[in-house]
Amino acid sequence: MSTIVSVDTVDIRFPTSQELDGSDAMNPDPDYSAAYVLLGTDAGDGHEGHGFVFTIGRGTDVQVAAIRALAPSLIGREVEPILDDLGGIWRELVGDSQLRWLGPEKGVMHMAIGAVVNALWDLKAKRAGLPLWQLLARMTPEEIVDLVDFRYLADVLTRDEALEILRAAVPGRAEREARLLADGYPAYTTTPGWLGYSDEKLVRLCREAVDDGFRMIKLKVGADVDDDIRRMRLARETVGPDIRIGTDANQRWEVAEAIEWMGRLAEFDVAWIEEPTNPDDILAHAAIARGVAPIPVATGEHGGGRVMFKQMLQAKALSVLQIDATRVAGVNENIAILLMAAKFGVPVCPHAGGVGLCEAVQHLSMFDFVAVTGTTEDRVIEYVDHLHEHFVTPTDVSGGAYRAPTAPGNGMEMLAASREEYTFHG
Amino acid sequence: MSTIVSVDTVDIRFPTSQELDGSDAMNPDPDYSAAYVLLGTDAGDGHEGHGFVFTIGRGTDVQVAAIRALAPSLIGREVEPILDDLGGIWRELVGDSQLRWLGPEKGVMHMAIGAVVNALWDLKAKRAGLPLWQLLARMTPEEIVDLVDFRYLADVLTRDEALEILRAAVPGRAEREARLLADGYPAYTTTPGWLGYSDEKLVRLCREAVDDGFRMIKLKVGADVDDDIRRMRLARETVGPDIRIGTDANQRWEVAEAIEWMGRLAEFDVAWIEEPTNPDDILAHAAIARGVAPIPVATGEHGGGRVMFKQMLQAKALSVLQIDATRVAGVNENIAILLMAAKFGVPVCPHAGGVGLCEAVQHLSMFDFVAVTGTTEDRVIEYVDHLHEHFVTPTDVSGGAYRAPTAPGNGMEMLAASREEYTFHG
Repeated sequence: MSTIVSVDTVDIRFPTSQELDGSDAMNPDPDYSAAYVLLGTDAGDGHEGHGFVFTIGRGTDVQVAAIRALAPSLIGREVEPILDDLGGIWRELVGDSQLRWLGPEKGVMHMAIGAVVNALWDLKAKRAGLPLWQLLARMTPEEIVDLVDFRYLADVLTRDEALEILRAAVPGRAEREARLLADGYPAYTTTPGWLGYSDEKLVRLCREAVDDGFRMIKLKVGADVDDDIRRMRLARETVGPDIRIGTDANQRWEVAEAIEWMGRLAEFDVAWIEEPTNPDDILAHAAIARGVAPIPVATGEHGGGRVMFKQMLQAKALSVLQIDATRVAGVNENIAILLMAAKFGVPVCPHAGGVGLCEAVQHLSMFDFVAVTGTTEDRVIEYVDHLHEHFVTPTDVSGGAYRAPTAPGNGMEMLAASREEYTFHG
Repeated sequence: MSTIVSVDTVDIRFPTSQELDGSDAMNPDPDYSAAYVLLGTDAGDGHEGHGFVFTIGRGTDVQVAAIRALAPSLIGREVEPILDDLGGIWRELVGDSQLRWLGPEKGVMHMAIGAVVNALWDLKAKRAGLPLWQLLARMTPEEIVDLVDFRYLADVLTRDEALEILRAAVPGRAEREARLLADGYPAYTTTPGWLGYSDEKLVRLCREAVDDGFRMIKLKVGADVDDDIRRMRLARETVGPDIRIGTDANQRWEVAEAIEWMGRLAEFDVAWIEEPTNPDDILAHAAIARGVAPIPVATGEHGGGRVMFKQMLQAKALSVLQIDATRVAGVNENIAILLMAAKFGVPVCPHAGGVGLCEAVQHLSMFDFVAVTGTTEDRVIEYVDHLHEHFVTPTDVSGGAYRAPTAPGNGMEMLAASREEYTFHG
């Protein structure tokens, strides 16, 4: 038996706004940041649990304060019972009768729980000597459903239905694990498409993306429709007809505006339109989805959690579901979302980029492939080539695919030197 | 010209959990608390701006940290241009491109903005020598719509439609102001109905409520259906057939459960069922509303903001809309919600109780009566007789009505001695 002895937090900020990397219609000047958490135990095995909430600058301190508010729920407790029942600790943290007032189940407090839950998963995976995706994909269907809080999901997904989905995927797990280790998981790149880039840089990066083996790229849109038409034309001319081009409006539009704008971009064969409007506006997304069909609507990086995703699926508000590793309350909640998406037959194409999101979210898609849906069809993980050098096990993306990580853990561990160098001191 | 020179914050917690006041199915042991903010200027006129976020104990420190994160946006700025354009500062704070990542427009960061915005309104009202409701109700329709951010509302309410609603209410403003000052605004009381109370206490408090002139009471339900039936029967027998009895499940149920449970309580003539399920579950509320009709569904105290309320109205998910003074981003956002409710013809019956919520929210209903809907029909403000003694201008509720406040300000100023005595020191 060992004990959790420390819950350390760090406010880490990279000055990315100086480069205009990551600029879009809603986020003109992000400083990619992390409210970082590091769980220490007295086990003496050298294993720590790492997790973080991805933020974009100001407010990272608030997110750090929220993680600190969770420390008393963990410090001094035995490690093994917690790691053996991560569904239990999830329910305990999310259900805290006083803290839940601050959401419930959304915003700063919910993301803080996600960081802590993810750090516990990191610790569990490192102790097991497995990458997170493999740890998850080797659990039994019964163990997996125990991770999920089905409260408020009964109208679309019961525990029994989830079990059925997972049991159906048991045959073939080993074969898919082997395929994943051999071929990786399809990626797409957002690197060419930031609004702050010149046309020359756009064209050059589009060409490089194709040369690098990507079969899909994504462009930010929504600031100026004539600019968007010109950039889409340039991109389409550069990559040819066989490469998919997604678009991302970063919440810029009203319903009618979204439909009209996408009508003007439709000629370029758009793979999807992402975040056309306010991310909590389920009914607006549904109206836009009807209005821009057959262009699929994609959303989720600002998703408010399993109850919001449930409704997005019920209302046919999205046809591409974009989970995010640090927006909801960690691995457990993302499993709930993956299971609902599987029930509805909606492909999950995770949001990534920022700092460390690629490292983290790949594990969830790979778990999905091996143990939930059994397919990568119509599925791609976002890739942006920023800031990977700061991680202990940076993503390995080549030939347009995420190579399956083999190092133990959840991928979120940042190099100690980077954590120190980019610690924000106000 | 004067300058904002300080944005002070305090973590204030009242140990209410020791008394079981405020206990319900979801919140067994709240310690009514406030993340308090106090804006100081160098005007030398003795006026400060007071505001707070209501919380229930743990996590108040996180909420305080979020308010502190907003201080740099205010300190050192000229007061008058901000107070002259409170719509502008609202958009600036809510739209901060880095802070909005922490929501957007929900949870800890959004409520922090609400506290600051409300403190600015307090300062403005004190400078004007008017209670907030009167300050608002004397603004022109054009000034009022300038306070509102119509972004993401275009599919249900445009600026022009809002203007039309407000202009239609201009005739009669003076007469309604006089009526309000004479008669007050109808209140209902939740005091009898907390789950922690014995049957004897329930009956005694029901009788006292009727004797005090209340025409409606509310009971917490949702922990045990047989208990609820017994308590509803006792309450109905005590108050007779003419007093309305609302029920509040505090998010306890799944859809099917809510419909079945309320079927068993229907015989007691239920005024409404409040928060039957997860507060963000618009579609579930809509399904419950269809299933429990004609019992109205009420919700909103955990509402995620104007976009969520918009959808609740669009989906017919509620027929009683419960605004809260500190859950959304302050007065401005609540005006947006009042205007949408007016457009849909849905009565607004504010959530109150906690600490200071009665003092704060009465101003919004009174503004609505004078300058928006012009009616109090089917409208009541919640009242709970807790902790009013800590406020500089405590609510005056008598004869079942909130007496219109006449003291300048928004009602949120807590006595300095109380702030000091209940400051939480970890």
